[in-house]
Amino acid sequence: MPQINEAHRKSVGPLEMPPRLLLGPGPSNAHPAVLQALGLRQVGHLDPSFLNMMSEVQELLRYAWQTENRITIPVSATGSAAMEATIANIIEPGEVMLIGNMGYFGNRLEDMASRYQADVRTIKKPWGEVFSLDELKAAMEEHRPKVLALVHAETSTGARQPFEGVGDLCKQYDCLLIADTVTSLGGVPLFIDEWGIDLAYSCSQKGLSCPPGASPFTMSDRALEKLSKREGKVPNWYLDMSLVGKYWGAERTYHHTAPINMNYAIREALRLIAQEGLEARWARHQSTAELMWEGLEAMGLEMHVPKEFRLPTLTTVRVPAGVDAKAVTSKMLNDYNIEIGNGLGELGGKVWRIGLMGFNSRPENVVTLLAAMERVLAEVGYKK
Amino acid sequence: MPQINEAHRKSVGPLEMPPRLLLGPGPSNAHPAVLQALGLRQVGHLDPSFLNMMSEVQELLRYAWQTENRITIPVSATGSAAMEATIANIIEPGEVMLIGNMGYFGNRLEDMASRYQADVRTIKKPWGEVFSLDELKAAMEEHRPKVLALVHAETSTGARQPFEGVGDLCKQYDCLLIADTVTSLGGVPLFIDEWGIDLAYSCSQKGLSCPPGASPFTMSDRALEKLSKREGKVPNWYLDMSLVGKYWGAERTYHHTAPINMNYAIREALRLIAQEGLEARWARHQSTAELMWEGLEAMGLEMHVPKEFRLPTLTTVRVPAGVDAKAVTSKMLNDYNIEIGNGLGELGGKVWRIGLMGFNSRPENVVTLLAAMERVLAEVGYKK
Repeated sequence: MPQINEAHRKSVGPLEMPPRLLLGPGPSNAHPAVLQALGLRQVGHLDPSFLNMMSEVQELLRYAWQTENRITIPVSATGSAAMEATIANIIEPGEVMLIGNMGYFGNRLEDMASRYQADVRTIKKPWGEVFSLDELKAAMEEHRPKVLALVHAETSTGARQPFEGVGDLCKQYDCLLIADTVTSLGGVPLFIDEWGIDLAYSCSQKGLSCPPGASPFTMSDRALEKLSKREGKVPNWYLDMSLVGKYWGAERTYHHTAPINMNYAIREALRLIAQEGLEARWARHQSTAELMWEGLEAMGLEMHVPKEFRLPTLTTVRVPAGVDAKAVTSKMLNDYNIEIGNGLGELGGKVWRIGLMGFNSRPENVVTLLAAMERVLAEVGYKK
Repeated sequence: MPQINEAHRKSVGPLEMPPRLLLGPGPSNAHPAVLQALGLRQVGHLDPSFLNMMSEVQELLRYAWQTENRITIPVSATGSAAMEATIANIIEPGEVMLIGNMGYFGNRLEDMASRYQADVRTIKKPWGEVFSLDELKAAMEEHRPKVLALVHAETSTGARQPFEGVGDLCKQYDCLLIADTVTSLGGVPLFIDEWGIDLAYSCSQKGLSCPPGASPFTMSDRALEKLSKREGKVPNWYLDMSLVGKYWGAERTYHHTAPINMNYAIREALRLIAQEGLEARWARHQSTAELMWEGLEAMGLEMHVPKEFRLPTLTTVRVPAGVDAKAVTSKMLNDYNIEIGNGLGELGGKVWRIGLMGFNSRPENVVTLLAAMERVLAEVGYKK
């Protein structure tokens, strides 16, 4: 046997992490009951008790997303993989995919779609704006796509894209509709079936108040039909829903080992949503966000997105002239253990991103944030 | 707003799962300290404390795998995704990939490689056997592959493929070497650099005693060079190491949100390995397995793999004539809360698969298993 190399045998103690209040674009703090479920002792991934739990997760997720879709599951990875799953399963090489790009995650959709050899067409909006139904109709007429992808809640801008009428438009053009609901599921009114959305993805660490690592995915019967008629195999084994669907479906055919404890956690997170009720949960997110908007405006700050299209889960706040944006986020983190996000891409240096999601959407967090912001802004020389 | 559909608003209580002892092919029970780390409150995925922890994880993983590779990280998904990451990054369409298929996971490699348009060539062994260096040399001479993939520890058969000399053989033919170490990392002697392995993958839920959901992946500088010279983008966004590597490297460029808590857990699991030391850990796995083999043999049972190539982490035990294999696994689970595995594929109905991995590799588990097996076998009519 070769000599063992001891160079990397690092001696470290048990993990100690700072007690952050996560009010950035995500992850948001998990609900304590979710963390408790996460730490439960495991069973096997084909154990009857686990298979039963998988059915509960699917059922609870159908409620949270307001869908009857059979394939409504958590993908065994983080949200970007669930995003990729929508494209990998539905796009065949050369097909036209139209992407409504109004921020960072629109760019990501373009990158992913090109890797699956879609004929990518894009319509763009300045970061912080949304598409009107007329604009979408004109683009559908021009590009005649097989798939349209829109971001319901753009985490980089805080804008909420209205979906009313979009599903009907897609049916009219025989096109499938993908929705990014990463920052809306569990916090913002969202109706997969009513809105005619064919494929959607989300994450666990925002509106669901669960750690990242298991990511909601759903597809309609129309989307399944397209999948079943593919010429070749899905060019991504791990995310191939013709295989994954059999593990989560009645067959329970082994595909990959599911992340057991992450599924414990997401079940608890979804259980808490069913217990609270969607109407109450959406109202809570709206009223907590309004409390914050009022407080920030009272400090002389401006919100980047008009109220009509502003997400309650994620707010972009304009950085006042003369203020060093990153100095503020650093001070918030280092002096008060509060994470808020910097701007991304076009909005880099121009906004802060403040999230109030799931368990963290509570008035006590708003008053804590406002008090800390006020002190930090004063320290960096900001005057109202 | 549309009416909320209450049909799927399932009312369930907090999760209660049976207290299983997981002695199947995996997952194996997590170490209690790992479960504790898993349930810690989160920080953000770009928090300085998290970035520091990521460095620790990489360093500890280099020790466990015995490698100096810069790219040595947990992929943000389960083991099959780490398997797919090796292929997705390294194969370009039309390149010859040679797969040593000696079990279920060889089949999976073939399926994945074909999705990435490799020119797949296969050499096969009956399930339970391994390849000799001469056989590998002859196949290299015949197929002249760009990439050779071998399974170090075949979870479906319990066989350990020797790697001595294989790396040199690959260098001689200017070929990259992939190793599946899913059931060997943390339990079986394994030397990535000494053996000249270019890409390897594993999982967290076996020898590391961590829940599934973050999966070790490593690639050598030779492999990185091939990646950097690709004609097109990696056809898998989530697993593209030219992007993922920048998040884990000095740049810390945002790619996807890492599964925070799974990384807490894997850090603790790897910390426990560094604390125990590889030599002691490998010796413990070997002696615990031998204790079980002796006990099973004393009951008149036969091991499927000759001792020379038998894994200490996963043992295939032949089902005696006249015994209903599944009746035994069901009784073990239902009457004693002990999970052991059924045979897969060619070995379906012919063997049981018993794992003694990581935290579960302890004499007390062996005596528990033997006592329960003896009773269950008697109940189904087995006589020595």
